[in-house]
Amino acid sequence: MSDGTCPFCSLPDDRIISESDLVLTIWDAFPVSPGHTLIIPRRHVASVFDLNIMEKAAILGAIEEAKKELDKEFSPAGYNIGVNDGRAAGQTIPHVHVHVIPRYEGDSKDPRGGVRWIFPEKAKYWKE
Amino acid sequence: MSDGTCPFCSLPDDRIISESDLVLTIWDAFPVSPGHTLIIPRRHVASVFDLNIMEKAAILGAIEEAKKELDKEFSPAGYNIGVNDGRAAGQTIPHVHVHVIPRYEGDSKDPRGGVRWIFPEKAKYWKE
Repeated sequence: MSDGTCPFCSLPDDRIISESDLVLTIWDAFPVSPGHTLIIPRRHVASVFDLNIMEKAAILGAIEEAKKELDKEFSPAGYNIGVNDGRAAGQTIPHVHVHVIPRYEGDSKDPRGGVRWIFPEKAKYWKE
Repeated sequence: MSDGTCPFCSLPDDRIISESDLVLTIWDAFPVSPGHTLIIPRRHVASVFDLNIMEKAAILGAIEEAKKELDKEFSPAGYNIGVNDGRAAGQTIPHVHVHVIPRYEGDSKDPRGGVRWIFPEKAKYWKE
């Protein structure tokens, strides 16, 4: 249970894009690209590995829905979808949030590597 | 269908950790951390958004299985799970592969941000 300090357990209305019984789709508070969206379970649970099967299915469905809406609104060229599970993985809010990050042609000098960039010094596995 | 050049359609045995009818669990060829694993559908399909529901369920199951095995073998402190969907998102092999990246205490100076590091200049949303 949340101790009352979890920002994902008391979201202002303007952060919420859509919601269902099990999950919410919200705007990221510090978007790294236009349309950066988060999918969160309604239930306060820290790890994706503690979600139940219904919550997992609802999150997958919400990712699909988010993509459709983001495609319409922003026409991105691709997506990074990812989750940081645990403090050592960069998770700062202990309430599951799956990042859905639209990508655009030219939004980075060289996008290769994608989520490998969690280790900037190891991401680049190719030779120039 | 693959044109015969897809590395994920003709994997050497030593890359394969486990397999089922629908998915394979393999070692990443350029691991960014000990135990860096990929989950791939057996079917050659580029985008996660083109996977069918059975493949998605099988991938979720394989992620759970991979975590159990990686916990046993490497005892990581967390995980980054992510997918690069589309060339603009850093996808270089057009055959779906979900990264399961074990994280360890102290494996980066400051892990905060996690998958946000796809944009190194925007990842840091906090003040020192």
